[in-house]
Amino acid sequence: MHRSIATVSLSGTLPQKLEAIAAAGFDGFELFEHDFIQFNGSAATLGTIARDLGLSVDLYQPFRDFEAMPELQFRRSLERAERKFDLMQAMGAPLVLCCSNTSPLAMDDPARAAAQLHALAERAAQRGLRVGFEALAWGRHTSRYGQAWDIVRRADHPSLGLILDSFHTLSLKDDPAGIADIPGEKIFFLQMADAPLMAMDVLQWARHHRSFPGQGDFDVVTFLEKTLRAGYTGPLSLEIFNDVFRETPNRRTAVDAMRSLLNLESQVRERLDHALPAEVALFSPPPLPDLSGISFIEFAVDEAAAVALGTLLQQLGFRRVGRHRSKAVVLYRQGDVHLIVNAQPDSFARERFDAHGASVCALGLRTDAPEAAAERAVAMRSQPHHSPVGPGEARVPATVAPGGNLVHFVASALGRDGLYAADFVLDDDGPGAADAGLQAIDHVALGLDIDQLDTWVLFSRAVLGLEPGESLELADPFGLIRSRGVANAERSVRLVLNVSLSQRTRTARTLRKSGGGAVHHIALRCDDIFASVAQLRANGAAFVPISGNYYDDLATRIDLDGGLIERMRESGVLFDRSPAGDYLHIYTESFENGLFFEVVQRVDGYDAYGAINAPARMASQAQS
Amino acid sequence: MHRSIATVSLSGTLPQKLEAIAAAGFDGFELFEHDFIQFNGSAATLGTIARDLGLSVDLYQPFRDFEAMPELQFRRSLERAERKFDLMQAMGAPLVLCCSNTSPLAMDDPARAAAQLHALAERAAQRGLRVGFEALAWGRHTSRYGQAWDIVRRADHPSLGLILDSFHTLSLKDDPAGIADIPGEKIFFLQMADAPLMAMDVLQWARHHRSFPGQGDFDVVTFLEKTLRAGYTGPLSLEIFNDVFRETPNRRTAVDAMRSLLNLESQVRERLDHALPAEVALFSPPPLPDLSGISFIEFAVDEAAAVALGTLLQQLGFRRVGRHRSKAVVLYRQGDVHLIVNAQPDSFARERFDAHGASVCALGLRTDAPEAAAERAVAMRSQPHHSPVGPGEARVPATVAPGGNLVHFVASALGRDGLYAADFVLDDDGPGAADAGLQAIDHVALGLDIDQLDTWVLFSRAVLGLEPGESLELADPFGLIRSRGVANAERSVRLVLNVSLSQRTRTARTLRKSGGGAVHHIALRCDDIFASVAQLRANGAAFVPISGNYYDDLATRIDLDGGLIERMRESGVLFDRSPAGDYLHIYTESFENGLFFEVVQRVDGYDAYGAINAPARMASQAQS
Repeated sequence: MHRSIATVSLSGTLPQKLEAIAAAGFDGFELFEHDFIQFNGSAATLGTIARDLGLSVDLYQPFRDFEAMPELQFRRSLERAERKFDLMQAMGAPLVLCCSNTSPLAMDDPARAAAQLHALAERAAQRGLRVGFEALAWGRHTSRYGQAWDIVRRADHPSLGLILDSFHTLSLKDDPAGIADIPGEKIFFLQMADAPLMAMDVLQWARHHRSFPGQGDFDVVTFLEKTLRAGYTGPLSLEIFNDVFRETPNRRTAVDAMRSLLNLESQVRERLDHALPAEVALFSPPPLPDLSGISFIEFAVDEAAAVALGTLLQQLGFRRVGRHRSKAVVLYRQGDVHLIVNAQPDSFARERFDAHGASVCALGLRTDAPEAAAERAVAMRSQPHHSPVGPGEARVPATVAPGGNLVHFVASALGRDGLYAADFVLDDDGPGAADAGLQAIDHVALGLDIDQLDTWVLFSRAVLGLEPGESLELADPFGLIRSRGVANAERSVRLVLNVSLSQRTRTARTLRKSGGGAVHHIALRCDDIFASVAQLRANGAAFVPISGNYYDDLATRIDLDGGLIERMRESGVLFDRSPAGDYLHIYTESFENGLFFEVVQRVDGYDAYGAINAPARMASQAQS
Repeated sequence: MHRSIATVSLSGTLPQKLEAIAAAGFDGFELFEHDFIQFNGSAATLGTIARDLGLSVDLYQPFRDFEAMPELQFRRSLERAERKFDLMQAMGAPLVLCCSNTSPLAMDDPARAAAQLHALAERAAQRGLRVGFEALAWGRHTSRYGQAWDIVRRADHPSLGLILDSFHTLSLKDDPAGIADIPGEKIFFLQMADAPLMAMDVLQWARHHRSFPGQGDFDVVTFLEKTLRAGYTGPLSLEIFNDVFRETPNRRTAVDAMRSLLNLESQVRERLDHALPAEVALFSPPPLPDLSGISFIEFAVDEAAAVALGTLLQQLGFRRVGRHRSKAVVLYRQGDVHLIVNAQPDSFARERFDAHGASVCALGLRTDAPEAAAERAVAMRSQPHHSPVGPGEARVPATVAPGGNLVHFVASALGRDGLYAADFVLDDDGPGAADAGLQAIDHVALGLDIDQLDTWVLFSRAVLGLEPGESLELADPFGLIRSRGVANAERSVRLVLNVSLSQRTRTARTLRKSGGGAVHHIALRCDDIFASVAQLRANGAAFVPISGNYYDDLATRIDLDGGLIERMRESGVLFDRSPAGDYLHIYTESFENGLFFEVVQRVDGYDAYGAINAPARMASQAQS
């Protein structure tokens, strides 16, 4: 498909935007009028810049408050249109977006609207230009695509067509099914936007909170499917008004934008069984990986931090079971949890350590097909990473996650020792006396900059096949934290994405020290949390203290056995209940950079992360 | 009055919040339950801390989803209440807030609600406690105070009363007039909150965007007036859920909170002509100053910056007309604009220079009664500032504005030279050849941190008597700017408060360099902008270039004489039109720290600041 993006979706000056759009591999762009008005150059100059970058000017937008107006205003708008047509010809833009009228002067008169749009289209046709009419969700009399199509049909001019925008349809909960019945050649342009579901005025929602397809909650896949079923063969474009994107470095936004389209195309492609016209070549990447667990977590340290972390891990019941054959890398194990502590100079890990201090620098994810997973990542515009491999050592394909940490894809077939047998001298004689019964990595929580959350949600979906859960807001004593889990269908891989909306929370302060996209805690799963905590305390592990008031209140909120509450109080264990099951958990004191561990026990089908208790943890950390 | 504030209104841990509340002079506080649950100490310990700080625990809040429930849930809630009553007795809290039920189980049955609340009040009475019932704006069946009062009246229990919250009434546009008819002794507690008018879901609005009285758009004065007319004599409290306050240092928030109550009381006092009961002693500060103009602006510089600024001012048509008798301070003048350039070592200005570089450090505001203005500022909890005064020099009372710059109050009676005659050697032989016809300071624009906007709006209202205008959002190429003007009634003093919502805009970067509350531009008024600009260009002044596309578009938007547009294009002048009049303006290139000047001409009754053109300026600055 011809892939396009509106300039309003990116930060920067117009030339900077166009460079970012070209660098991300787009074919063209929609020119937002304000960007042009503020551009220090003529329309012809802009056209030259675009051509030099290999971009077409697909659309000039928007033209406002035109149709269904009294004669005087209509005449004046026609004159205004001629001036805009001058510009479009000079820059080489073939199509103008005319959005439905929001003026109080607009009349509820589709016949008048059609006649006036016919006149506009006739003027455009004389210049070889075309006009697309789009229903704004807050249009005064025309807010749905069905109404806009009715007007376009009445006008019946070859240079007048319909422009569709998924936001305007899906924000009103309008049914996109009818799109499939519109003649494809009368749909002149398609704008795709997603958005989180929000209880707010649609205009404010539209102007501040749209997102790229795959970052929000709309069924954008069905919307594109219906449009293609109509026979649409034009550009696939993105028009995203988003306050965060306005400030995000535009190269990053442009890559997210392209990834969102490629992912959307690949999803729609799976649904469209009938042959599409040749010009609609939907993107066809390798399939999403079928992940089956977190194979390992790797820490970047120096020699001193390696010692400190080793002590902490031994308190947590881990045994040092391996030493790398050629590098200063050590393997710790407990149950099926593998932690790699990398202090090798001149390594990727050391680069991360030098930049961010002791921190997690890589995750290993288990899959049946690691090479295909890495190819999928590349296809989705994620940077591949090739580690130097010594003779006889295992090659593990990897990709760079947003923020710079690595995600390795580890073959399930390798089994428990297989990945390490080649590279490490292993020495595992089974669980030692300190083993605390921690069996698997339940989830990994990341602290993200505000402009990385949407990026991570899309990366999780398009590259890792993880789907987001509910978006929550948690109160830290120094500001709000937005938190959203992403997980695979079988729940063997879970990440929690946390964003501090304040600069003053612990999460934000940790982030400043340890870089964007940093792991701020690792949750380890056990079967009997009281036994595990007893062993961990015996090992010398320290936990975040929880106020007795928490347990007094818990007894009033949830109908729990008094003995259980007392055990929790004595152990410092927190509790949450959902209809599906229970969650018992406890947080360790922090290591360097604010990193800490969580020990969790899931009972029955509990599927969340104990967010209700995070404020108690954050308050306790703030009081300590 | 007994002044109180809810702990949820402030950032920090509970002990930190209480210290800030006490330091700001409050008498008591409302304890938000989450703050207590997360507090590492018992209810008795909390009570001791409060007493040691001289604070009463006025209210425990909230108790939820109680009334109009099926019998089973009601019984369980009564048990829950007993546990909360235990805590209240231990900490010494006499009153619990029970907010109207939002549960889907709640029944639309006021009689049942009354009976169940009666039972709760009876339990409370046995402990010497009281229950207050409040209508939440999003309560399932009870959302208005009239409904809540009806239930309280039916319940008819001496330990059950009504709690009023201005947010819940005014957000629903409910009429507070009926409050005056409720018996005052049945109103147990009063929570005051303001909010900006927003088109959003009331629950989201309530949880994230309330503000202190005087910071928003609600008529909180009438609300308090009606409550006092009812005969209410209880605490005057603040319950503010605000995302920004959650992260603002709590000492600052607590001062704002106290200022908001004192200002509110003083406004209501003016309205209540009948004698109030003795226990309702409303605050009575000196009156708001009657400002009549900006007398001067003072710059903090060192010797090098003084030279550079002097050159710039001479390009702008200013003459150096005075030299301080004892200090390294120079006076520049043009028309009625006075600019003081202060390079004196060991001065307040030098402290500001050392901290922030060359920047504005003080404003002088003209008023008939400077001493009263300064006393008003002190009464409103603004820090006074006493400059060292040499023998024979003028004493000018001053207060410290939020962010640390000074506001001086200058006696109007001093006239044009009077303020300077004593301290300066004056040498003004009238306008020179470079005079550009700049006649007055039109407005001063400040760049504020996000958590200073509400503080400044309230300071402007309560200390300076300036009222805010519309809140606007402007698009910088690297993020949004929120902009709000404040002005006196006669429009002789105007400030524009700008907040960058992004860290990457020019405004944000300037702010980081020059400190919070920095002046980022100064607008000077003239009568003929084309003549002024011609002279300024002849003097060597440089202006931000404006794209030709701006003028092409202007011609399509506004019906203007073609010759005028060409003059603007040649001069680089921008244009805005409102129904009341026109605004022509131009921006200079930046001096140090991003500071620049604007030259403006107001035609007829134009009353704004050309915000529509700010994006063109910001884009041009970003391209240069």
